[in-house]
Amino acid sequence: MSNEKIRVAIVGATGYTGAELLRILLSHPSVEVTSIVGQSKAGRPVAEVLPSLAGIVSGVVDAFDADRVAAGADAAFCALPHGASAGIVAQLHARGVRVFDLSADFRIGDLDTYTRWYGEHHAPELFGKAVYGLVELHRAELRGATLVAVPGCYPTAANLALAPLVNAKLVSTEGVIIDAKSGVSGAGRAPGERTHFSETSEGIRAYKLLSHRHTPEIEQELSRLADRPVQVIFTPHLVPMTRGILSTAYAVAAPGVDAVRCTEAARALYEGSPSVVVLDPGASPDTLWIRGSNRVHLSYTFDPRTGRVIALSTIDNLVKGASGQAVQCLNVAFDRPEGEGLLFAPQWP
Amino acid sequence: MSNEKIRVAIVGATGYTGAELLRILLSHPSVEVTSIVGQSKAGRPVAEVLPSLAGIVSGVVDAFDADRVAAGADAAFCALPHGASAGIVAQLHARGVRVFDLSADFRIGDLDTYTRWYGEHHAPELFGKAVYGLVELHRAELRGATLVAVPGCYPTAANLALAPLVNAKLVSTEGVIIDAKSGVSGAGRAPGERTHFSETSEGIRAYKLLSHRHTPEIEQELSRLADRPVQVIFTPHLVPMTRGILSTAYAVAAPGVDAVRCTEAARALYEGSPSVVVLDPGASPDTLWIRGSNRVHLSYTFDPRTGRVIALSTIDNLVKGASGQAVQCLNVAFDRPEGEGLLFAPQWP
Amino acid sequence: MSNEKIRVAIVGATGYTGAELLRILLSHPSVEVTSIVGQSKAGRPVAEVLPSLAGIVSGVVDAFDADRVAAGADAAFCALPHGASAGIVAQLHARGVRVFDLSADFRIGDLDTYTRWYGEHHAPELFGKAVYGLVELHRAELRGATLVAVPGCYPTAANLALAPLVNAKLVSTEGVIIDAKSGVSGAGRAPGERTHFSETSEGIRAYKLLSHRHTPEIEQELSRLADRPVQVIFTPHLVPMTRGILSTAYAVAAPGVDAVRCTEAARALYEGSPSVVVLDPGASPDTLWIRGSNRVHLSYTFDPRTGRVIALSTIDNLVKGASGQAVQCLNVAFDRPEGEGLLFAPQWP
Amino acid sequence: MSNEKIRVAIVGATGYTGAELLRILLSHPSVEVTSIVGQSKAGRPVAEVLPSLAGIVSGVVDAFDADRVAAGADAAFCALPHGASAGIVAQLHARGVRVFDLSADFRIGDLDTYTRWYGEHHAPELFGKAVYGLVELHRAELRGATLVAVPGCYPTAANLALAPLVNAKLVSTEGVIIDAKSGVSGAGRAPGERTHFSETSEGIRAYKLLSHRHTPEIEQELSRLADRPVQVIFTPHLVPMTRGILSTAYAVAAPGVDAVRCTEAARALYEGSPSVVVLDPGASPDTLWIRGSNRVHLSYTFDPRTGRVIALSTIDNLVKGASGQAVQCLNVAFDRPEGEGLLFAPQWP
Repeated sequence: MSNEKIRVAIVGATGYTGAELLRILLSHPSVEVTSIVGQSKAGRPVAEVLPSLAGIVSGVVDAFDADRVAAGADAAFCALPHGASAGIVAQLHARGVRVFDLSADFRIGDLDTYTRWYGEHHAPELFGKAVYGLVELHRAELRGATLVAVPGCYPTAANLALAPLVNAKLVSTEGVIIDAKSGVSGAGRAPGERTHFSETSEGIRAYKLLSHRHTPEIEQELSRLADRPVQVIFTPHLVPMTRGILSTAYAVAAPGVDAVRCTEAARALYEGSPSVVVLDPGASPDTLWIRGSNRVHLSYTFDPRTGRVIALSTIDNLVKGASGQAVQCLNVAFDRPEGEGLLFAPQWP
Repeated sequence: MSNEKIRVAIVGATGYTGAELLRILLSHPSVEVTSIVGQSKAGRPVAEVLPSLAGIVSGVVDAFDADRVAAGADAAFCALPHGASAGIVAQLHARGVRVFDLSADFRIGDLDTYTRWYGEHHAPELFGKAVYGLVELHRAELRGATLVAVPGCYPTAANLALAPLVNAKLVSTEGVIIDAKSGVSGAGRAPGERTHFSETSEGIRAYKLLSHRHTPEIEQELSRLADRPVQVIFTPHLVPMTRGILSTAYAVAAPGVDAVRCTEAARALYEGSPSVVVLDPGASPDTLWIRGSNRVHLSYTFDPRTGRVIALSTIDNLVKGASGQAVQCLNVAFDRPEGEGLLFAPQWP
Repeated sequence: MSNEKIRVAIVGATGYTGAELLRILLSHPSVEVTSIVGQSKAGRPVAEVLPSLAGIVSGVVDAFDADRVAAGADAAFCALPHGASAGIVAQLHARGVRVFDLSADFRIGDLDTYTRWYGEHHAPELFGKAVYGLVELHRAELRGATLVAVPGCYPTAANLALAPLVNAKLVSTEGVIIDAKSGVSGAGRAPGERTHFSETSEGIRAYKLLSHRHTPEIEQELSRLADRPVQVIFTPHLVPMTRGILSTAYAVAAPGVDAVRCTEAARALYEGSPSVVVLDPGASPDTLWIRGSNRVHLSYTFDPRTGRVIALSTIDNLVKGASGQAVQCLNVAFDRPEGEGLLFAPQWP
Repeated sequence: MSNEKIRVAIVGATGYTGAELLRILLSHPSVEVTSIVGQSKAGRPVAEVLPSLAGIVSGVVDAFDADRVAAGADAAFCALPHGASAGIVAQLHARGVRVFDLSADFRIGDLDTYTRWYGEHHAPELFGKAVYGLVELHRAELRGATLVAVPGCYPTAANLALAPLVNAKLVSTEGVIIDAKSGVSGAGRAPGERTHFSETSEGIRAYKLLSHRHTPEIEQELSRLADRPVQVIFTPHLVPMTRGILSTAYAVAAPGVDAVRCTEAARALYEGSPSVVVLDPGASPDTLWIRGSNRVHLSYTFDPRTGRVIALSTIDNLVKGASGQAVQCLNVAFDRPEGEGLLFAPQWP
């Protein structure tokens, strides 16, 4: 490792994932944040736009200028909405900046699938060029990567739980059900009817039934691991809390499989993964236990009556589900220790 | 209908279901509450034990005395923990009081099953004598009933959604998964580690994996409707809100079934049921929409890719999941209009 | 009392106070809701706009038409923003409809004061003609009233606590401090940055320091009771809950005054007021205890060390702080029992 | 600075302040935690007792043994209830361990006052020997200190806001009112009726009116600064959130004082204090903005109408109000940079 810091720009810094990138990177020993970019809030003090940074960050939000970003940064995190991201990513990538894109624009490998779920792609020349940044499953490809598609929050939660099962053929690839529950921050910073406090607090609901855009991303990764097409039912729910995802996945166990074998498979697969903790069989992880951290808690339970495995996983959607994972990708891509700047304990309670 | 009021005692009045019974019954036009009984808090003013009743109820909590209750009441609601309830129920029933028992003691029809899940039964002479009070499915048997087992909160939510499907053979009885989410009041009024605010707020978790006692109750009712043994996976989750249950159930659709057919089946089954609203196909009910009311919202969604139906249902666990349903049972048992005193709108937001 | 129902229109029915008016009036024995008016959502089914009314209200939202409203209604509740309300109120009042206005447009008696805090008034011909609808303090004037200004939520909470003290000269009119805490529903239904779940949950803050428009309304009423100008510091705070206001008011006690005397003065003043409960000296009311009801809990504490009285009060901002109080005004204005349709118990917990 | 790490024991590690000490110290570059002590949970794995530390801390909770702690630690944090702490502190101090006591046992300087508010003291030989660890106001005395009384959460919040005003004689010392609002974690980890989720969520209440034990601690510090006895009204409130204190303090301004002068006085006093941010006049800090951090936000507002200053302050009760401040004390006492290990950004949202 060199002693020189990695110079980093954050583009789209004024939303929640941008704020979380700043929180993490300001304490990261090998990174220097050289540019904080945000289109609609350009020119305003960072500490006014992100009030938690009062007394910590003194500059203003920059307008986007690809040349200026490229001149001052080795790497950029793009925390922009899908659609808006691809063009920016392409400009930076063309100027030699290594890009970690938190949007969905480069997560899907098949253009038809992308178009069907997201519409037209705005940087087709780069399509298919990104490494999918689910670090625990793509570590080798990430070393030296110049373009990384940081996974969605739900696919991170669901697939880290299901990967050991699918990978070791412990479950059928038919009939997988993912019932996921997310805190409200996953919906971003823009106010709307469905995230208005009075109509969000004290209620739980499913949303985007059968139509959530993370579905193809989940299936792509599981299909890759299974080496054949996998279709899942994915039902996201909105829970009255700010952070956290709990994924409760159900799958039909292969003959002879039980919770111990699932647990062992997960522990084997995630050996050496500093972010993953595989709890004992039958445990019930709580999103509060990993709040604010880059950690994943997994557990497996087997129902001999119905022959199903229940795979539980918890992440903080803004950390391991977004900004923390992006930094984890950067660490690997720049050959730093994977957990550098990311091993802080959860904030509990 | 006679003009005389039904005289009612509430035994176990100082917990949440007792409080909710009082809230409902104090506005019920045909009921007079004649006795408020609570063992550990006997002698204390009701308004001290239940501070929301300050200025509304002026008496004290009575100690239990079967003869005194029987002398003053035509009916009793028993809102006691399972195990503790059966003996009290038997004493009152023997004295001619019609009993609506909110505990689990009389919900299970098979003694072996009861014993396996709950332990010894404390009033074996009455075992199997109660009518199961899921009103929409047992209305006829409830008329004139003298002993009613008011259903559990989760079985009410899950089975009202699944009954039309199982009843009309629209889904397979194999592989039914019920992923349910409950507010914290379902855990009752006794403080504990798992309902402590700081460790409950801002977190979601599954609990009692494969071991929740509502499992056999759910299966008993579905098996009855299917006319053969049904086994389900039932996974309850604790959500950081006080009231409400959302049940997300998954089942394999029979050939040719879609969301419209499920919706129609539900509308047909619940025609004339004042508490049930069957929403349009694909709707996502929110527990906030029925908070504080005796209402049930149902919806059905079909996934042609995987051939599964998603059956969603929402109830307020303390109302339709407990006290409201108990009053609904009383209305039917005493030949009052089923919705009397129960048609108040939800408190929203 | 006649047997004929009072025919009522709700104008601005699709916000929270409108929804709450509907919840209350649908159970009111002497009222029939004949028109549900909402400008921006006209033509849409009520149950789509207010999802808690699914299966309860079957019609659509009407556009505003003064003649049509007047033809079908004896009274109208206007639940519109200030500024927008006055013109509508004037049209209805001119057509003989008795109007209960939940906006601020007619609360202030002095035009200069109104203009300074709210800007131009849009129905100057009616200015000063309304009865101020803090029922407990204006009951006599309200009988037969044709135009009622329903008080703001904070003035209701603060002044019901302070009125007995000021009225009986138990405290100095100098140095009164009102530190009030409100749930988020007080900010209404329009989504915004400051009511976005993720930035509202798990945080408390003061807002509109020294500039909240309820200040002149509080002072007007206290000055009237004191018979001389009273100035207060009023600091509202936003609390991460949906409903409820707690007002903590501090005043310098007159010589010889203690908590018992304050309590007695309040009990004397509110004798016969069905909504007010004066708790024992030193009690700490909780907003949860009155949630969803039209009740007010008051308590008084005296600090002999500093000679101050602490006057605590709790209301539900959407009920006694808005819609419930409006119905209470209607009851009195139409010579019905003051508590008719309003005596339902709080929803606890 | 030497390169050797400070060896630290945490006694009473299994409550919230203990957990928070661990979270902070595990990332502290100059500290090594050598012992995690907890009486009632001795022998259990740390990660079982504090589930957020699964995969982070592998040992078990130790039973208390003064000799063993002293052998392995240069310093100890005692996070025990008052009363229980003094004896443990004395044992460790006698063995040469420098002690940072988070209980109230050594905060009060006057034995009569201590006894009146807390009862008998259990280590009278050490009474009066501790440095009061409000770092910003006692920095010089803390250098080299061997016994530090870490301040209470409310006194930290209130006094940091009021100190600049009292110190610079900008306000009268008469009539100071402190209306404080705290998250529920301040009540600790033991479950109880008043912190039970269902009765805490969605409600706000004042508590311990005029009797909260932080009152004499607040007054002691203000009296010291004012150089004469100061009496305050201190009213704590419980807010439905886990972390955070907002203190809203009211004081009578001296002639000619306004918000700018108060702000300047605070900025002057806290120059060089890495934890304190003095916001611009009239700002409204939110506890969410400092959640999870050791930061303090202050702001001052002046009301020319009533001549009062409103001094607002926010802290995280578990960090700057307890564990973070304790570490800040250790840093100063051991001659490390005051902010070492403490400058991490808040977790927002």
